[in-house]
Amino acid sequence: MRALGIDPGTATTGYGIVDYLAGREKLVHYGTIRTAAEMDMPIRLCRIKGELDRLLQEYQPDVVAVEELFYHRNSKTVITVAQSRGVVLMTAAAAGLPIAEYTPLQVKQSVVGYGNADKRQVQIMVQRILAMNEMPRPDDAADALAVAICCLHSYRLSRFIKDGNL
Amino acid sequence: MRALGIDPGTATTGYGIVDYLAGREKLVHYGTIRTAAEMDMPIRLCRIKGELDRLLQEYQPDVVAVEELFYHRNSKTVITVAQSRGVVLMTAAAAGLPIAEYTPLQVKQSVVGYGNADKRQVQIMVQRILAMNEMPRPDDAADALAVAICCLHSYRLSRFIKDGNL
Repeated sequence: MRALGIDPGTATTGYGIVDYLAGREKLVHYGTIRTAAEMDMPIRLCRIKGELDRLLQEYQPDVVAVEELFYHRNSKTVITVAQSRGVVLMTAAAAGLPIAEYTPLQVKQSVVGYGNADKRQVQIMVQRILAMNEMPRPDDAADALAVAICCLHSYRLSRFIKDGNL
Repeated sequence: MRALGIDPGTATTGYGIVDYLAGREKLVHYGTIRTAAEMDMPIRLCRIKGELDRLLQEYQPDVVAVEELFYHRNSKTVITVAQSRGVVLMTAAAAGLPIAEYTPLQVKQSVVGYGNADKRQVQIMVQRILAMNEMPRPDDAADALAVAICCLHSYRLSRFIKDGNL
């Protein structure tokens, strides 16, 4: 089972690919899709789709996981993030992949164990779970890895329940 | 010169295709792309892209015009509209088309003549400019026609200035 976690944005879209293999999570790849601020927005969105298509092709995930988006105080940000998120959801659906969506609370609970965890605690747990030598950087890539881990935890749990263990 | 105006949404995306021909605007086609509420959001966004691709293919516009999006009180709406808007911008850019964006104020000023015009006044002027027998319906399609007209007005003005008339 391979999950591709995405943290959508316009300047920086984080991604993280994690396998669930032999009872544990294993890091495959992570990074960011960057677009230059001087490019027109439609061209930036086009580039995000192109890079995401390339990742889907190269890493063949079984599921794409994205955090749910809530209203931020900074309305300008929420609009551009949502535009990018729309492109991400559409691209994954066009590739025929299931898309899992999680609230920030679900991601924190799943990765750290409680919903009030801060960004740094999430990053420390991502590093520990994936046995990484360094903290995942930048934040967008770390967030993408966290949502991929949350997705795999949730898959593991649902299989555990399905097998009649709960 | 042919403009495709789009009013993005999730349940209903309005579109309106208008030509600027022999010194006046001429209605080509208008309507809506609808997606069912019971469909998953990524599938709905995928359908919007598919229908928009079909319109671009069939009507071959020279430019795609979209209203700028501002923060609404209803934050849930602004996020879903922005997601759909992202898909629209990306689809037009992927087709290699220029995208023109206008504020609601610019659209009203261009179509009615003043920025405080209400929805009904805009619709009456759209009907008059395009010599339609009936008011364009639904609102989403009327809004899309208005942004297409705004785009053509702006193109006409820019050509007028370029020709040394202003």
